[in-house]
Amino acid sequence: MSGFVAIAGLGPGREDLVTPEVSAVLAEASDVIGYIPYVARVAPRDGLTLHPSDNRVELDRAELALRLAAEGRRVVVVSSGDPGVFAMASAVFEGLEQHPQYGDVEIRVLPGITAMLAAAAAAGAPLGHDFCAINLSDNLKPWELVEHRLRLAAQADFAMAFYNPRSKSRPHQFARALEILREECGNERLITFARTVSTPQQALNTVTLGEATPEMADMRTVVLLGNSATRRVGRHVYTPRSAG
Amino acid sequence: MSGFVAIAGLGPGREDLVTPEVSAVLAEASDVIGYIPYVARVAPRDGLTLHPSDNRVELDRAELALRLAAEGRRVVVVSSGDPGVFAMASAVFEGLEQHPQYGDVEIRVLPGITAMLAAAAAAGAPLGHDFCAINLSDNLKPWELVEHRLRLAAQADFAMAFYNPRSKSRPHQFARALEILREECGNERLITFARTVSTPQQALNTVTLGEATPEMADMRTVVLLGNSATRRVGRHVYTPRSAG
Repeated sequence: MSGFVAIAGLGPGREDLVTPEVSAVLAEASDVIGYIPYVARVAPRDGLTLHPSDNRVELDRAELALRLAAEGRRVVVVSSGDPGVFAMASAVFEGLEQHPQYGDVEIRVLPGITAMLAAAAAAGAPLGHDFCAINLSDNLKPWELVEHRLRLAAQADFAMAFYNPRSKSRPHQFARALEILREECGNERLITFARTVSTPQQALNTVTLGEATPEMADMRTVVLLGNSATRRVGRHVYTPRSAG
Repeated sequence: MSGFVAIAGLGPGREDLVTPEVSAVLAEASDVIGYIPYVARVAPRDGLTLHPSDNRVELDRAELALRLAAEGRRVVVVSSGDPGVFAMASAVFEGLEQHPQYGDVEIRVLPGITAMLAAAAAAGAPLGHDFCAINLSDNLKPWELVEHRLRLAAQADFAMAFYNPRSKSRPHQFARALEILREECGNERLITFARTVSTPQQALNTVTLGEATPEMADMRTVVLLGNSATRRVGRHVYTPRSAG
C-alpha cells in the first residue's frame, strides 16, 4: 500500500514560513483535505483533488483522509500553524480510534510554525521563559476548566498564549478571562494582541492588562500575556530568561 | 544604516525543517553568531564571517551582534529550534537593555520549529490540548520554582514539554521532577522521551511515569508528558481535543 496521510502545518500565513518538508509533501499529494481557507492556500494542479470543508467537521475530514489513504491515495490534511497545536492532528488520531479498520494506514505529522511563536517573534520574545498555551474556546471543554487553568497558570507565573480568544457565539467569555487575569496578575502586566500574524494585514498591539478590552481580540487574534518579569525594551516586548 | 540583527531559528536539526525565511536571511548575512554546533550548520562562503562560541556566553553574543549591526553588518544570531523558546531572542533583548547605545539597531526575530513541536509531531499529537513548556535547568531560576510550576501545571492538567531535562552538573534534579510528577499525576500517565528529533539518530521512547527513569533523558532530549486523557492509538501517542 503506497497511500498515506500526512497532517501538515502551513504556518501562520506567509509562504516563506512554510517548511520545505511541507512544500514537498504537497507536491506529491493526490488529495488535500482541510478547512476552506487553508485548502485555498494550496495551488490547484492536474492530479490533485482539493477537499475543502467548513469548520467543525474535523472528524469527517479525518475519516475521509483515512479512507482515501487506505485506497492508496497520497493524502495531505492541512492545518494553519502547527497541526499538533489546537489543530487537525489530534482529530485524525481520534478518527483512527473510531475507525480501527484503518490501523495500517501510514500517518505522519509534519510540524509548522504555530501562531503563538510567530506572534512572539513579531513582538520580540514574550515567551522567552516558561509558558503555557491555552485554547479559550469552550467548544470542547467546560468553561470552568478554562477559568481553573487560567488561575493556576497565573499562580505558576507562566507567560501565556491564548488561541481562539473570542468568537461571536461567546462574546462574554474573553471579558471574563481578562477579569480573572487582572485579579491574579494585576493591572500592570503586559498583554499583546497579535492579529493575522505574518500576513500583510498583521497588527500588533501591546497594552497593560488594565488597558486591555475584549474588543482588542477576535478569532484571528492570538493573545500573549507576559509573566511578572515581562517588559518593553525599545519597540520590543520580552521576557527575561531568568526568574526568581 | 543598513545593518541588522536577525535572530533566526534553525529548527530541530533536519534541513527541510528550516523555513525559507531563515534560509533567505542566512544567504544575505555578513556575520553568523551562535553556539558552536548551531553555527556549524551554516555553510561557509566568501563574505560571511562565522562567530561560533561556547555555551553560557549568551550576553557576550548579544553584545557582539548589536555592535556589528551598529557598524552596518548584516548579523544573524542562530538558535536551534525557535529563538523565542529557551534560546537567543531573550538574551539579545537583555543585551539591548544593558547597551542602550544600540537602541536604533533593527532587530528581527525569525521563528523556527521548536523541539517540543517536532517531538510531538514525531510521536503523534501529545500536545493536542492545552499544554505548557518548562525549562528544567536551574541555571537561571531557583529549583524550588521549577517544583512549584510542575505541581501547578499538573493540577491544571496541562500536557507538558520539558526542555533541558538533565545535565551532568545536576544529575539528581530530573529524578526529583519525575517523583513530583508521579505524586501529582499517578504512575499510569504517558511520558515520551524524544532524543535528537528529526536527525538520523532520532530516538523516541514512550513509557508510563511508573516506568520512567532519569537515565531515559539527557541534554539532547525533549520530554513530553501527557495530560490525564493522553493515550495510545496504534503506534501513536495523542491527546484528544476535548476535556472535562
